Amino acid sequence: MKIVVDAMGGDHAPKAIIAGVIEAVKEFQVDIVLVGIEDAVRAELAKYDYPKSKIEIIHAPGVVEMDDPATASIRSKRNSSITIGVDLLNRPGFDAFVSAGNTGAVVAASTFKLGMLPDVERPAIGLVLPTLQGCSFLIDVGANPDPKPKHLLQSGLMAEVYSRQVLGVENPRVGLVNIGEEAAKGTDFVKESFQLMSEGLNNFVGYVEANDIFSGKFDCIICDGFVGNVIIKVSQHLMESAGTLIKREIKKSPLALLGAFLMKSRLLHIKRLADYSEYGGAPLLGVNGIVMISHGRSGPKAIKNAIRATMREVEHQLISKMIKKVHKQ
Amino acid sequence: MKIVVDAMGGDHAPKAIIAGVIEAVKEFQVDIVLVGIEDAVRAELAKYDYPKSKIEIIHAPGVVEMDDPATASIRSKRNSSITIGVDLLNRPGFDAFVSAGNTGAVVAASTFKLGMLPDVERPAIGLVLPTLQGCSFLIDVGANPDPKPKHLLQSGLMAEVYSRQVLGVENPRVGLVNIGEEAAKGTDFVKESFQLMSEGLNNFVGYVEANDIFSGKFDCIICDGFVGNVIIKVSQHLMESAGTLIKREIKKSPLALLGAFLMKSRLLHIKRLADYSEYGGAPLLGVNGIVMISHGRSGPKAIKNAIRATMREVEHQLISKMIKKVHKQ
Repeated sequence: MKIVVDAMGGDHAPKAIIAGVIEAVKEFQVDIVLVGIEDAVRAELAKYDYPKSKIEIIHAPGVVEMDDPATASIRSKRNSSITIGVDLLNRPGFDAFVSAGNTGAVVAASTFKLGMLPDVERPAIGLVLPTLQGCSFLIDVGANPDPKPKHLLQSGLMAEVYSRQVLGVENPRVGLVNIGEEAAKGTDFVKESFQLMSEGLNNFVGYVEANDIFSGKFDCIICDGFVGNVIIKVSQHLMESAGTLIKREIKKSPLALLGAFLMKSRLLHIKRLADYSEYGGAPLLGVNGIVMISHGRSGPKAIKNAIRATMREVEHQLISKMIKKVHKQ
Repeated sequence: MKIVVDAMGGDHAPKAIIAGVIEAVKEFQVDIVLVGIEDAVRAELAKYDYPKSKIEIIHAPGVVEMDDPATASIRSKRNSSITIGVDLLNRPGFDAFVSAGNTGAVVAASTFKLGMLPDVERPAIGLVLPTLQGCSFLIDVGANPDPKPKHLLQSGLMAEVYSRQVLGVENPRVGLVNIGEEAAKGTDFVKESFQLMSEGLNNFVGYVEANDIFSGKFDCIICDGFVGNVIIKVSQHLMESAGTLIKREIKKSPLALLGAFLMKSRLLHIKRLADYSEYGGAPLLGVNGIVMISHGRSGPKAIKNAIRATMREVEHQLISKMIKKVHKQ
């Protein structure tokens, strides 16, 4: 299996990316193609001892910066690691693409270079969320902030396949985010999506209120990309703020400081549960190829875990199963 | 000052409501009118020793249940404590209404019985959020899930007044929730709202990403009622889940248990910071009267604090100042 990795994407590229790739090739049965500025990539690789045959470099002179517009990858920076990396998936022998770079640019390049799956009109980004009982799959977290109801149905169909094939949930329960559980609540957009999803999904269980997102009662949680983006940013920030508050309060009392020391291993365990880097990436679904988007702040562990998650998608032939599922509708 | 309180609203009514009212009349310079089923209210009041002249009862035979449709208060249950309580504000001598009952029903009754402020077309619910640096005012958290851009401008104008007059912020910084800070990001709805708010607000500082909501960088945070509702439900649930997780982990280790015991007073301090019951209620803005909506799960402390927050709104003549501000636009 050969996975293409954007060496230049993310706040800590290429250093953190290459450190993660090195860990991955040592631990997993995988070959990696690093796409980026060749000199920079070689200089970083030279720091490590690793099985040389498992890492190959493809030069891309351009870099899409985190604050470039999404269209940079298909207009001004067509020679970037993102654009060249995605385009490799059109050649035989390249199985998937992983990037911690500019999300909008990865979405644009993937849509443009790979095209959409049959009967899927818009891309959507999924995210595996830790819950009180395991994990749930939230989609869309930002690719399409202003979708139509049929796009939410398409997200629901893709989420079912992802949950079953990649996350191993036998009969995934799919819910639609709304501001109440009653049929009368919500916008026309949500009500129309509800109707389509009731008819088109195997196990549609109705509305999810936002206070049930982390409960584990739903395997797949569907929403538009605006709401999904708000959900993940609020959650991430809140967990971080809570951590900041806890540290600030603890420092005010020596007894609390001792208490925190005694609790340390259990608190770290919780931090791990709430840590996005455990899964490592967010699959971009709907495009005709396996693309994984990692957080811009990804460190080596997140990159390694994103590669592992991407390998699972390749192993389970995600794309061909998704085509079958969505196309038969 | 005379505040009307819905004795029958909320999961723990009338018990928790009346316990909170008793605390309020003992602590504050306020008279309370309890609206509800007279026998039930009298039976509960009989349990307490309190200054009798400060509490009056007005009988309302109907009760809007938490799962009744919003329109119950203006259709099938026009004799409910919500409808009769709101209607009292149309008589001289009644300054404000507080309810922990069915939110939709309170919004419907208030809109119908009180009417809207001049040049405000839709009601909006605000919420005072604790942040890392104090508090911010988030609006709308659910009254209007599908607004037009001009409604967001109206929310912004009302939020400015609330923040300045009631929360004491001299020149409130107002932000609009979006999925990025760049002008190109977001939906057409958000972009159009941005334009109106740039022109119509005193100190509009641009887009707020959801990961900045609790940062304290913004005094007023404006969004549609769907997104706002998702924000508060996700936050509340996440804080509760984190608490559950922490307790579960701590129980696994005697050392951690001891640690938690030593940290207890500091952890309680954090819990207080994140506790909705500290402010006690969410003001319903845009209607022609002072209406405060408390959480359905409110206990006595939340009710007492909601009465205190409502008193501040009355003292600062919120409605007349809001009319001046919004009307001059």
